[in-house]
Amino acid sequence: MEQSPPRNTSVTVADVARMAGVSKATAARVLGGYGTVSERVREAVTAAARALNYRPNELARSMTTGRSGTIGVVVGDIENPFFSLAVRGITDIARQAGFTVILTNSGENAETEKAAIRTLLAKRVDGLIVSPASESDIDHLREATRSGLPMVLLDRGSEALDVDTVIADDRHAAETVTRKLIALGHRRIAYITACDTPDHCFRMVQDINTGSVRRRIEGYLSVCAEAGLTGMEKWVRVGAVKSEQTHSIVAELFRSPERPTAIIASDSMIALEIFKVHRQLGLSIPGDVSLVSFHDADWTSVTTPTVTVVRQPVYDLGTTAAKLLVERLNGAAPAARKVVLKSEIVERASTREAYGDC
Amino acid sequence: MEQSPPRNTSVTVADVARMAGVSKATAARVLGGYGTVSERVREAVTAAARALNYRPNELARSMTTGRSGTIGVVVGDIENPFFSLAVRGITDIARQAGFTVILTNSGENAETEKAAIRTLLAKRVDGLIVSPASESDIDHLREATRSGLPMVLLDRGSEALDVDTVIADDRHAAETVTRKLIALGHRRIAYITACDTPDHCFRMVQDINTGSVRRRIEGYLSVCAEAGLTGMEKWVRVGAVKSEQTHSIVAELFRSPERPTAIIASDSMIALEIFKVHRQLGLSIPGDVSLVSFHDADWTSVTTPTVTVVRQPVYDLGTTAAKLLVERLNGAAPAARKVVLKSEIVERASTREAYGDC
Repeated sequence: MEQSPPRNTSVTVADVARMAGVSKATAARVLGGYGTVSERVREAVTAAARALNYRPNELARSMTTGRSGTIGVVVGDIENPFFSLAVRGITDIARQAGFTVILTNSGENAETEKAAIRTLLAKRVDGLIVSPASESDIDHLREATRSGLPMVLLDRGSEALDVDTVIADDRHAAETVTRKLIALGHRRIAYITACDTPDHCFRMVQDINTGSVRRRIEGYLSVCAEAGLTGMEKWVRVGAVKSEQTHSIVAELFRSPERPTAIIASDSMIALEIFKVHRQLGLSIPGDVSLVSFHDADWTSVTTPTVTVVRQPVYDLGTTAAKLLVERLNGAAPAARKVVLKSEIVERASTREAYGDC
Repeated sequence: MEQSPPRNTSVTVADVARMAGVSKATAARVLGGYGTVSERVREAVTAAARALNYRPNELARSMTTGRSGTIGVVVGDIENPFFSLAVRGITDIARQAGFTVILTNSGENAETEKAAIRTLLAKRVDGLIVSPASESDIDHLREATRSGLPMVLLDRGSEALDVDTVIADDRHAAETVTRKLIALGHRRIAYITACDTPDHCFRMVQDINTGSVRRRIEGYLSVCAEAGLTGMEKWVRVGAVKSEQTHSIVAELFRSPERPTAIIASDSMIALEIFKVHRQLGLSIPGDVSLVSFHDADWTSVTTPTVTVVRQPVYDLGTTAAKLLVERLNGAAPAARKVVLKSEIVERASTREAYGDC
């Protein structure tokens, strides 16, 4: 922080010491509840602390109890209903176990994630639940676990981190969805994701740093290959983060001479944008293009047509991650566990047989 | 915390002291950067801290800089897109100003909010942005501000708290919407909100503890009264928090012999449930019932029909609250400011003239 100190800063140990007429070290001993001081000094410091409305700090508490009663959570994008639902799962379990959840948002950016982790460590959280923005840029996570801090990875694993991990069966879900589309005669099947690559182009699946999405694209490509569809990498679009970006990706796909006949949206916010664009361009779902979306967002059942979705076990991802973490916070120390939860395909009205020459 | 201490607890000052062979008070002096110790002792403690991977704690940092670099935010329901968008506004400004946001969720429950505030104070946040669950149950907020902690109220003010407040023009927006519905011939206009009363019944507007919603209902009732519609309190429904609750409220309204011809939904999650129920019951929007919703949620523009909404300045509520707070954190100390931001009515296709005898 390079700004000037605020006028209304909170009361510090130094303020209490000054008022009580003792050294900062002595005040810290009294306030922190350690060391020995005379009864007279203890009373003076306590009275000063009360008069100044000194807030007992976290360090004093964690020196006594060994924990701060908080779980730190880092999600990729809190505006994505996937994460807000997962956070509800985490919070429900944490509350039952007597922990408060504090939440930070990485915006799917590894640098912001590092700052968030630093903050949570400085706040002395008892444990972390993280959806890493990148599977490879994880030194900061490794460092946090090395200090003995329990950590659970949510929705996205990392081979490089030996910690509890809770993910959905993303590859299997993508395989099932792709197989259904191929069975309906689709050959030009686009896959759109918010994940990005340095040059915003997709060449191969290794370009994708987010585990859950990489597994989905692997599933999609492998089922296509089985069906004799090669070179499908050209149908993968990355970087659909903000609605404007998604809008131009979808518009470009729809306007190209070789339009896709089906699209798989990697999250519900992308599906929503597809819905907006297809109307603007006068296209029909599923008449002109079939649509399947990951995440059974609430609105997908009220549109015309309703949207076929991969219903991921989002709430359960959250509760399971929190349960694994709470177990460790309560003293259990098993080897790292990898939990894979099942998704379900909910068939609605947004897919049908491919038209024309497909 | 009444659980047994975890095995992998984080390294404490006591651990460092033990390894360095000094007292806890001495280790705390070195690690906290205050008091005087010999060079030899300082080196021993520093080496032990390094070996044990001791994480410098927040207290030490805030004793030096007077701040922790974090803003604590308490929202009513992070699953409500209103709040996740407002949080993005807060985060965008906070990041520019060099602050990290840590977020907690009250679930619109005053007790949970108190626990959240306690946690954030213990984490020594530099300032707070709060959407109070209740306007009257605010002793914990008053106490936090008394200690000199800057606080901004978001979306909901409280007469009893003299702090910066950023709200939308809820009353005016509700008046405009109600006037439009009355002009279309509607007389049986229901208002549905997530806010609740102790016995889940609405009798008078004073029953509503959430400022933003109370102002809306005031606007709705006053415009109705102007138009000669009295006793409209019977059309207000409270407690539509979870989708099941909203579902039964809406179903009961739709099935009653005297069905409303128009509904105002106080948030987009309620509007979504109305959409689901009307289809299940074979009703038509706007043929059988007109719908207006607060919050221009993304999905409201892709349904059939599209939904007429009150577009609240949600992102701006967040950025404005964060700006006011950052100003104070940077030393400004003006009198408490009350900012009211304008909403806009977006007319879409979910309203039309009342049918039949209305």
